[in-house]
Amino acid sequence: MQPNIHKQDQPVSHPLFHSHPALWAQVADAVRVKHFANDDRIVSHSDEASGLWLVLKGWVTLSRQTPDGKETIIGLCTEGDIFGEAALFPNANYPYTAEASGKETELAMIPAPVIRAQVAKNGSLSNHIMSMLSDRVGQAQLKLEQINTMSASQRLGCFLLRLCVTQESGSKTLHIPIEKNILAAYLGMKPETFSRSQQQLKPLGILVSGDKVNIENISALREFVCGSCSESGSCDVEDAAE
Amino acid sequence: MQPNIHKQDQPVSHPLFHSHPALWAQVADAVRVKHFANDDRIVSHSDEASGLWLVLKGWVTLSRQTPDGKETIIGLCTEGDIFGEAALFPNANYPYTAEASGKETELAMIPAPVIRAQVAKNGSLSNHIMSMLSDRVGQAQLKLEQINTMSASQRLGCFLLRLCVTQESGSKTLHIPIEKNILAAYLGMKPETFSRSQQQLKPLGILVSGDKVNIENISALREFVCGSCSESGSCDVEDAAE
Repeated sequence: MQPNIHKQDQPVSHPLFHSHPALWAQVADAVRVKHFANDDRIVSHSDEASGLWLVLKGWVTLSRQTPDGKETIIGLCTEGDIFGEAALFPNANYPYTAEASGKETELAMIPAPVIRAQVAKNGSLSNHIMSMLSDRVGQAQLKLEQINTMSASQRLGCFLLRLCVTQESGSKTLHIPIEKNILAAYLGMKPETFSRSQQQLKPLGILVSGDKVNIENISALREFVCGSCSESGSCDVEDAAE
Repeated sequence: MQPNIHKQDQPVSHPLFHSHPALWAQVADAVRVKHFANDDRIVSHSDEASGLWLVLKGWVTLSRQTPDGKETIIGLCTEGDIFGEAALFPNANYPYTAEASGKETELAMIPAPVIRAQVAKNGSLSNHIMSMLSDRVGQAQLKLEQINTMSASQRLGCFLLRLCVTQESGSKTLHIPIEKNILAAYLGMKPETFSRSQQQLKPLGILVSGDKVNIENISALREFVCGSCSESGSCDVEDAAE
């Protein structure tokens, strides 16, 4: 079966292939493009990690459950992101359940043996993966720290800023087709705190309507958020502003 | 200058060299062993990442400050741990300040160009580093999730259990020469919550006296902690019990 490639969402346009053009030629035959509808399960927690997943379009939530029944959202992935890195390691299992959020999620999957073989023979690819993992450690640590250093509305603002990353100023409309309670859980807030935070961002020109978020002035939002962050001056969001 | 190697704390006994015996021969001449007293600064946030650090003995706190003056403890490293992975990447800076905690901290430092050259030519080493970074992502995500799924005393219990990792049951005495407010900050608690959590662990046979912590019954502590954790069944702490 040949991958089902749409012109606008070709896997080759994903940052992983963009930064390793030769990789695409090596893996193209093995890559599978898959489509998911809202709430479709992609992989389950503890399943054998059979592939590395690249998000081409839409949103994916990564979640887990504790034995005593609490569910937590540990990740939200969108266009350009990667999940399922457990596939890079032999005999590993996915450490979370992944589900599609929103109407249309399009993913490319590179089978585990294929990506492992490439990583083994391509030093620049393994450097890329190490650097990606290292960034991910940094982001998780930062999120942990922001629970103590930032207000809830600053944390919501930081999440929105990260989605504007390629745009340094001016206004922007984001499309976030994720249920509010999931987004609140991801940001470590109760739903009522999340609603209050939305209200608190209004005077800064952040208006939410359905799954659309209008940001009137990215610079003003950055000013509100970044003063309380220890990455201030070295995060991608700020790099974009330079 | 030849490294100052103590018999009992030879860098070669660190897990990194233990799992890559050939690596030691390649880097031994370049490795520097350094000693630090309590509160000595090891590296500063934003310094050029000039080396990868291995903890041979003692404790190291990793911290950051926000522009508006809040300090957060983002990591605590002890014997067998590694920090300063930024040194694996060209032109990177340390994303935190590292300071010694307790009377005697002994570290081995592998200069950045030396470890980078080894990683570039040794696929098994770069796999080890990827796997270490991937574990670290998992641990940070787990910590984030535990803020929502566990009580403060369960989080303190989980921290203690991880320090017992090589011992599956019975009793144990841990030596944790870290100020309580630092430990509380690392666990995301106010100092008074930390004190209350210590009290709540007493009926489980956890007794704190100065910088010593006596754990009467590791299995009982595990039972108290792990039922509220989504890694239950797949974490090192539990592996030890199998």
